[in-house]
Amino acid sequence: MLVLGVDPGLTRCGLGVVEGSPGRAHLVEAGVIRTPAGMELGDRLVAIEAGLEEWLSRHQVEVVAVERVFAQHNLMTVVGTAQAAGIAMLVAARHHLRLDQHTPSEVKAAITGSGRADKAQVGTMVSRILHLDASPKPADAADAVALAICQAWRGASSQRIARASLEWAGATSARKALR
Amino acid sequence: MLVLGVDPGLTRCGLGVVEGSPGRAHLVEAGVIRTPAGMELGDRLVAIEAGLEEWLSRHQVEVVAVERVFAQHNLMTVVGTAQAAGIAMLVAARHHLRLDQHTPSEVKAAITGSGRADKAQVGTMVSRILHLDASPKPADAADAVALAICQAWRGASSQRIARASLEWAGATSARKALR
Repeated sequence: MLVLGVDPGLTRCGLGVVEGSPGRAHLVEAGVIRTPAGMELGDRLVAIEAGLEEWLSRHQVEVVAVERVFAQHNLMTVVGTAQAAGIAMLVAARHHLRLDQHTPSEVKAAITGSGRADKAQVGTMVSRILHLDASPKPADAADAVALAICQAWRGASSQRIARASLEWAGATSARKALR
Repeated sequence: MLVLGVDPGLTRCGLGVVEGSPGRAHLVEAGVIRTPAGMELGDRLVAIEAGLEEWLSRHQVEVVAVERVFAQHNLMTVVGTAQAAGIAMLVAARHHLRLDQHTPSEVKAAITGSGRADKAQVGTMVSRILHLDASPKPADAADAVALAICQAWRGASSQRIARASLEWAGATSARKALR
Protein backbone atom coordinates (compact mmCIF):
# COMPACT_ATOMS: atom_id res chain seq x y z
CA MET A 1 0.00 0.00 0.00
CA LEU A 2 1.41 3.39 -1.03
CA VAL A 3 0.89 5.97 1.73
CA LEU A 4 1.53 9.73 1.84
CA GLY A 5 2.26 11.00 5.35
CA VAL A 6 1.79 14.72 6.01
CA ASP A 7 3.31 16.54 9.00
CA PRO A 8 1.36 19.81 8.58
CA GLY A 9 2.93 23.24 8.96
CA LEU A 10 3.01 26.58 7.14
CA THR A 11 6.78 27.19 7.21
CA ARG A 12 7.68 23.54 6.60
CA CYS A 13 5.04 20.97 5.66
CA GLY A 14 6.69 17.55 5.88
CA LEU A 15 5.81 14.89 3.27
CA GLY A 16 6.78 11.23 3.15
CA VAL A 17 5.73 8.54 0.69
CA VAL A 18 6.13 4.98 1.95
CA GLU A 19 5.26 1.65 0.35
CA GLY A 20 4.39 -0.64 3.21
CA SER A 21 2.30 -3.33 4.81
CA PRO A 22 2.23 -4.44 8.45
CA GLY A 23 5.81 -5.26 9.53
CA ARG A 24 7.63 -3.91 6.47
CA ALA A 25 8.09 -0.50 4.82
CA HIS A 26 10.11 1.00 1.96
CA LEU A 27 10.82 4.73 1.60
CA VAL A 28 9.81 6.14 -1.81
CA GLU A 29 10.33 9.89 -1.21
CA ALA A 30 10.65 12.32 1.68
CA GLY A 31 10.73 16.12 1.61
CA VAL A 32 9.09 19.36 2.66
CA ILE A 33 6.99 22.12 1.13
CA ARG A 34 8.43 25.42 2.42
CA THR A 35 6.59 28.76 2.38
CA PRO A 36 8.20 31.97 3.65
CA ALA A 37 6.76 33.57 6.80
CA GLY A 38 6.59 36.93 5.01
CA MET A 39 4.28 35.60 2.26
CA GLU A 40 0.53 36.42 2.48
CA LEU A 41 -1.27 33.60 4.32
CA GLY A 42 -3.63 32.85 1.40
CA ASP A 43 -0.66 32.52 -0.96
CA ARG A 44 1.10 30.18 1.48
CA LEU A 45 -1.96 27.92 1.50
CA VAL A 46 -2.10 28.00 -2.33
CA ALA A 47 1.60 26.99 -2.43
CA ILE A 48 0.98 24.09 -0.02
CA GLU A 49 -2.03 22.98 -2.10
CA ALA A 50 0.10 23.10 -5.29
CA GLY A 51 2.93 21.14 -3.63
CA LEU A 52 0.54 18.42 -2.44
CA GLU A 53 -1.08 18.18 -5.87
CA GLU A 54 2.36 17.84 -7.42
CA TRP A 55 3.35 14.99 -5.06
CA LEU A 56 0.03 13.20 -5.73
CA SER A 57 0.59 13.53 -9.49
CA ARG A 58 4.01 11.81 -9.13
CA HIS A 59 2.96 9.02 -6.75
CA GLN A 60 -0.08 6.76 -7.09
CA VAL A 61 -0.92 7.15 -3.41
CA GLU A 62 -3.83 5.12 -1.99
CA VAL A 63 -4.02 6.62 1.50
CA VAL A 64 -3.13 9.97 3.05
CA ALA A 65 -2.19 10.10 6.76
CA VAL A 66 -2.18 13.52 8.44
CA GLU A 67 -0.98 14.30 11.95
CA ARG A 68 -3.96 15.14 14.12
CA VAL A 69 -3.80 18.75 15.34
CA PHE A 70 -4.73 19.53 18.94
CA ALA A 71 -5.46 23.07 20.08
CA GLN A 72 -3.85 22.32 23.43
CA HIS A 73 -0.41 21.60 21.93
CA ASN A 74 0.90 25.01 20.92
CA LEU A 75 -1.36 28.04 21.07
CA MET A 76 1.11 30.16 19.04
CA THR A 77 1.14 27.90 15.97
CA VAL A 78 -2.04 25.78 16.17
CA VAL A 79 -4.09 27.96 13.79
CA GLY A 80 -1.46 27.79 11.01
CA THR A 81 -0.84 24.09 11.61
CA ALA A 82 -4.58 23.36 11.50
CA GLN A 83 -4.87 25.32 8.23
CA ALA A 84 -2.02 23.39 6.59
CA ALA A 85 -3.60 20.12 7.80
CA GLY A 86 -6.94 21.29 6.38
CA ILE A 87 -5.38 21.85 2.95
CA ALA A 88 -3.93 18.31 3.03
CA MET A 89 -7.34 16.86 3.94
CA LEU A 90 -9.05 18.97 1.26
CA VAL A 91 -6.64 17.75 -1.44
CA ALA A 92 -6.93 14.11 -0.31
CA ALA A 93 -10.75 14.28 -0.31
CA ARG A 94 -10.79 15.91 -3.76
CA HIS A 95 -8.81 12.89 -5.04
CA HIS A 96 -11.22 10.52 -3.21
CA LEU A 97 -8.28 9.05 -1.29
CA ARG A 98 -8.70 7.32 2.03
CA LEU A 99 -7.68 9.77 4.74
CA ASP A 100 -6.69 9.03 8.33
CA GLN A 101 -5.38 11.18 11.15
CA HIS A 102 -2.95 9.94 13.80
CA THR A 103 -1.79 11.51 17.04
CA PRO A 104 1.97 11.81 17.72
CA SER A 105 1.54 9.15 20.46
CA GLU A 106 -0.06 6.71 18.01
CA VAL A 107 2.86 7.23 15.60
CA LYS A 108 5.47 6.71 18.34
CA ALA A 109 3.68 3.59 19.58
CA ALA A 110 3.46 2.14 16.06
CA ILE A 111 7.18 2.75 15.36
CA THR A 112 8.84 2.07 18.74
CA GLY A 113 6.22 0.23 20.80
CA SER A 114 5.97 3.17 23.22
CA GLY A 115 3.72 6.22 22.85
CA ARG A 116 6.19 8.18 24.98
CA ALA A 117 9.37 7.47 22.95
CA ASP A 118 11.59 10.51 22.31
CA LYS A 119 12.42 11.99 18.88
CA ALA A 120 15.84 10.30 18.72
CA GLN A 121 14.37 6.86 19.42
CA VAL A 122 11.70 7.34 16.73
CA GLY A 123 14.39 8.52 14.28
CA THR A 124 16.59 5.50 15.02
CA MET A 125 13.69 3.10 14.51
CA VAL A 126 12.52 4.83 11.30
CA SER A 127 15.99 4.53 9.73
CA ARG A 128 16.27 0.89 10.92
CA ILE A 129 12.81 -0.02 9.50
CA LEU A 130 13.63 1.65 6.16
CA HIS A 131 17.24 0.31 6.02
CA LEU A 132 18.64 3.85 5.83
CA ASP A 133 21.97 5.07 7.25
CA ALA A 134 20.21 8.03 8.86
CA SER A 135 16.72 9.39 9.45
CA PRO A 136 15.29 11.50 6.55
CA LYS A 137 16.07 15.24 6.80
CA PRO A 138 14.71 17.74 7.79
CA ALA A 139 12.84 16.63 10.93
CA ASP A 140 9.43 17.48 9.39
CA ALA A 141 10.11 15.04 6.52
CA ALA A 142 11.12 12.35 9.03
CA ASP A 143 7.91 12.94 11.03
CA ALA A 144 5.86 12.60 7.83
CA VAL A 145 7.64 9.32 6.98
CA ALA A 146 6.91 8.02 10.50
CA LEU A 147 3.23 8.94 10.02
CA ALA A 148 3.15 7.04 6.73
CA ILE A 149 4.72 3.94 8.35
CA CYS A 150 2.19 4.17 11.21
CA GLN A 151 -0.62 4.30 8.64
CA ALA A 152 0.72 1.32 6.65
CA TRP A 153 1.19 -0.74 9.80
CA ARG A 154 -1.89 0.01 11.84
CA GLY A 155 -4.13 2.14 9.65
CA ALA A 156 -7.26 0.22 10.47
CA SER A 157 -6.94 0.37 14.24
CA SER A 158 -6.03 4.08 14.28
CA GLN A 159 -8.92 4.72 11.92
CA ARG A 160 -11.28 3.03 14.32
CA ILE A 161 -10.09 5.26 17.16
CA ALA A 162 -10.29 8.37 14.96
CA ARG A 163 -13.83 7.53 13.85
CA ALA A 164 -14.95 6.98 17.44
CA SER A 165 -13.49 10.34 18.49
CA LEU A 166 -15.06 12.00 15.43
CA GLU A 167 -18.43 10.53 16.34
CA TRP A 168 -18.00 11.76 19.87
CA ALA A 169 -17.06 15.25 18.61
CA GLY A 170 -20.00 15.14 16.19
CA ALA A 171 -22.40 14.17 18.93
CA THR A 172 -21.01 16.97 21.11
CA SER A 173 -21.45 19.63 18.43
CA ALA A 174 -24.91 18.26 17.56
CA ARG A 175 -25.87 18.62 21.21
CA LYS A 176 -24.48 22.17 21.18
CA ALA A 177 -26.44 23.01 18.03
CA LEU A 178 -29.63 21.80 19.71
CA ARG A 179 -29.18 24.07 22.71
CA MET B 1 -16.62 48.02 -3.45
CA LEU B 2 -18.14 44.51 -3.38
CA VAL B 3 -16.99 42.58 -0.31
CA LEU B 4 -17.51 38.95 0.73
CA GLY B 5 -17.42 38.49 4.51
CA VAL B 6 -16.75 34.98 5.84
CA ASP B 7 -17.54 33.88 9.40
CA PRO B 8 -15.66 30.57 9.28
CA GLY B 9 -17.02 27.33 10.72
CA LEU B 10 -17.42 23.68 9.72
CA THR B 11 -21.05 23.19 10.71
CA ARG B 12 -22.18 26.62 9.55
CA CYS B 13 -19.85 28.88 7.53
CA GLY B 14 -21.50 32.32 7.37
CA LEU B 15 -21.26 34.32 4.12
CA GLY B 16 -22.31 37.89 3.43
CA VAL B 17 -21.88 39.98 0.29
CA VAL B 18 -22.07 43.73 0.82
CA GLU B 19 -21.65 46.62 -1.62
CA GLY B 20 -20.22 49.46 0.43
CA SER B 21 -17.90 52.37 0.93
CA PRO B 22 -17.08 54.22 4.17
CA GLY B 23 -20.36 55.34 5.77
CA ARG B 24 -22.77 53.40 3.54
CA ALA B 25 -23.50 49.73 2.80
CA HIS B 26 -26.04 47.71 0.84
CA LEU B 27 -26.75 44.02 1.43
CA VAL B 28 -26.45 41.88 -1.70
CA GLU B 29 -26.75 38.37 -0.25
CA ALA B 30 -26.38 36.60 3.10
CA GLY B 31 -26.39 32.89 3.85
CA VAL B 32 -24.49 29.91 5.21
CA ILE B 33 -22.70 26.83 3.90
CA ARG B 34 -23.73 23.92 6.12
CA THR B 35 -21.88 20.61 6.39
CA PRO B 36 -23.10 17.78 8.62
CA ALA B 37 -20.97 16.87 11.66
CA GLY B 38 -21.11 13.17 10.64
CA MET B 39 -19.48 13.83 7.23
CA GLU B 40 -15.76 13.00 6.82
CA LEU B 41 -13.67 16.10 7.59
CA GLY B 42 -12.01 16.17 4.15
CA ASP B 43 -15.41 16.05 2.46
CA ARG B 44 -16.69 18.91 4.67
CA LEU B 45 -13.73 21.04 3.55
CA VAL B 46 -14.42 20.14 -0.10
CA ALA B 47 -18.08 21.19 0.37
CA ILE B 48 -17.03 24.52 1.92
CA GLU B 49 -14.58 25.10 -0.95
CA ALA B 50 -17.32 24.34 -3.50
CA GLY B 51 -19.78 26.67 -1.74
CA LEU B 52 -17.26 29.54 -1.69
CA GLU B 53 -16.42 28.99 -5.36
CA GLU B 54 -20.13 29.07 -6.18
CA TRP B 55 -20.64 32.40 -4.33
CA LEU B 56 -17.60 33.91 -6.06
CA SER B 57 -18.94 32.79 -9.44
CA ARG B 58 -22.23 34.62 -8.74
CA HIS B 59 -20.76 37.84 -7.29
CA GLN B 60 -17.91 39.89 -8.76
CA VAL B 61 -16.31 40.29 -5.34
CA GLU B 62 -13.19 42.50 -5.05
CA VAL B 63 -12.22 41.78 -1.44
CA VAL B 64 -12.68 38.86 0.95
CA ALA B 65 -12.79 39.55 4.71
CA VAL B 66 -12.37 36.57 7.04
CA GLU B 67 -12.78 36.59 10.81
CA ARG B 68 -9.37 36.17 12.41
CA VAL B 69 -9.18 32.91 14.39
CA PHE B 70 -7.47 32.91 17.78
CA ALA B 71 -6.42 29.68 19.46
CA GLN B 72 -7.30 31.15 22.84
CA HIS B 73 -11.00 31.61 22.00
CA ASN B 74 -12.42 28.10 22.07
CA LEU B 75 -10.12 25.11 22.35
CA MET B 76 -12.90 22.67 21.40
CA THR B 77 -13.65 24.23 18.01
CA VAL B 78 -10.56 26.27 17.07
CA VAL B 79 -9.03 23.58 14.81
CA GLY B 80 -12.19 23.22 12.68
CA THR B 81 -12.77 26.98 12.60
CA ALA B 82 -9.15 27.57 11.54
CA GLN B 83 -9.52 24.97 8.79
CA ALA B 84 -12.70 26.56 7.41
CA ALA B 85 -10.98 29.99 7.53
CA GLY B 86 -7.99 28.45 5.72
CA ILE B 87 -10.23 27.20 2.90
CA ALA B 88 -11.73 30.71 2.53
CA MET B 89 -8.22 32.24 2.35
CA LEU B 90 -7.08 29.57 -0.12
CA VAL B 91 -10.03 30.23 -2.43
CA ALA B 92 -9.60 34.03 -2.19
CA ALA B 93 -5.87 33.77 -2.97
CA ARG B 94 -6.54 31.44 -5.91
CA HIS B 95 -8.80 34.14 -7.37
CA HIS B 96 -6.13 36.80 -6.65
CA LEU B 97 -8.62 38.72 -4.51
CA ARG B 98 -7.53 41.09 -1.79
CA LEU B 99 -7.87 39.31 1.54
CA ASP B 100 -8.09 40.83 5.01
CA GLN B 101 -8.71 39.37 8.44
CA HIS B 102 -10.56 41.20 11.22
CA THR B 103 -10.96 40.37 14.88
CA PRO B 104 -14.48 40.33 16.40
CA SER B 105 -13.52 43.50 18.36
CA GLU B 106 -12.56 45.33 15.16
CA VAL B 107 -15.91 44.37 13.61
CA LYS B 108 -17.87 45.53 16.68
CA ALA B 109 -15.94 48.80 16.80
CA ALA B 110 -16.52 49.45 13.08
CA ILE B 111 -20.28 48.80 13.35
CA THR B 112 -21.18 50.23 16.77
CA GLY B 113 -18.22 52.40 17.78
CA SER B 114 -17.38 50.05 20.66
CA GLY B 115 -15.20 46.94 20.49
CA ARG B 116 -17.11 45.54 23.46
CA ALA B 117 -20.64 45.86 22.08
CA ASP B 118 -22.89 42.81 22.59
CA LYS B 119 -24.42 40.66 19.82
CA ALA B 120 -27.83 42.37 20.04
CA GLN B 121 -26.31 45.84 19.66
CA VAL B 122 -24.28 44.72 16.62
CA GLY B 123 -27.41 43.11 15.12
CA THR B 124 -29.47 46.27 15.64
CA MET B 125 -26.81 48.44 14.02
CA VAL B 126 -26.32 46.03 11.08
CA SER B 127 -30.05 46.08 10.26
CA ARG B 128 -30.16 49.90 10.67
CA ILE B 129 -27.10 50.39 8.38
CA LEU B 130 -28.58 48.07 5.73
CA HIS B 131 -32.17 49.44 6.11
CA LEU B 132 -33.50 45.97 6.97
CA ASP B 133 -36.39 45.16 9.31
CA ALA B 134 -34.28 42.56 11.09
CA SER B 135 -30.70 41.28 11.19
CA PRO B 136 -29.91 38.57 8.57
CA LYS B 137 -30.52 34.99 9.78
CA PRO B 138 -28.92 32.73 10.97
CA ALA B 139 -26.44 34.43 13.30
CA ASP B 140 -23.42 33.19 11.29
CA ALA B 141 -24.76 34.97 8.18
CA ALA B 142 -25.27 38.17 10.22
CA ASP B 143 -21.70 37.93 11.54
CA ALA B 144 -20.39 37.53 7.99
CA VAL B 145 -22.37 40.60 6.86
CA ALA B 146 -20.94 42.62 9.78
CA LEU B 147 -17.42 41.52 8.73
CA ALA B 148 -18.10 42.67 5.16
CA ILE B 149 -19.35 46.09 6.39
CA CYS B 150 -16.26 46.40 8.62
CA GLN B 151 -14.07 45.66 5.59
CA ALA B 152 -15.87 48.18 3.35
CA TRP B 153 -15.69 50.88 6.02
CA ARG B 154 -12.23 50.48 7.48
CA GLY B 155 -10.46 47.90 5.34
CA ALA B 156 -7.25 49.86 5.07
CA SER B 157 -6.76 50.51 8.78
CA SER B 158 -7.59 46.94 9.79
CA GLN B 159 -5.26 45.72 7.07
CA ARG B 160 -2.45 47.82 8.48
CA ILE B 161 -2.99 46.29 11.93
CA ALA B 162 -3.23 42.79 10.46
CA ARG B 163 -0.02 43.26 8.49
CA ALA B 164 1.85 44.52 11.55
CA SER B 165 0.70 41.51 13.57
CA LEU B 166 1.60 39.18 10.68
CA GLU B 167 5.06 40.69 10.50
CA TRP B 168 5.40 40.26 14.24
CA ALA B 169 4.25 36.61 13.99
CA GLY B 170 6.62 36.10 11.04
CA ALA B 171 9.55 37.53 12.96
CA THR B 172 8.68 35.30 15.92
CA SER B 173 8.58 32.13 13.82
CA ALA B 174 11.76 33.15 11.98
CA ARG B 175 13.50 33.50 15.36
CA LYS B 176 12.14 30.09 16.35
CA ALA B 177 13.41 28.54 13.09
CA LEU B 178 16.89 29.90 13.81
CA ARG B 179 17.08 28.27 17.21
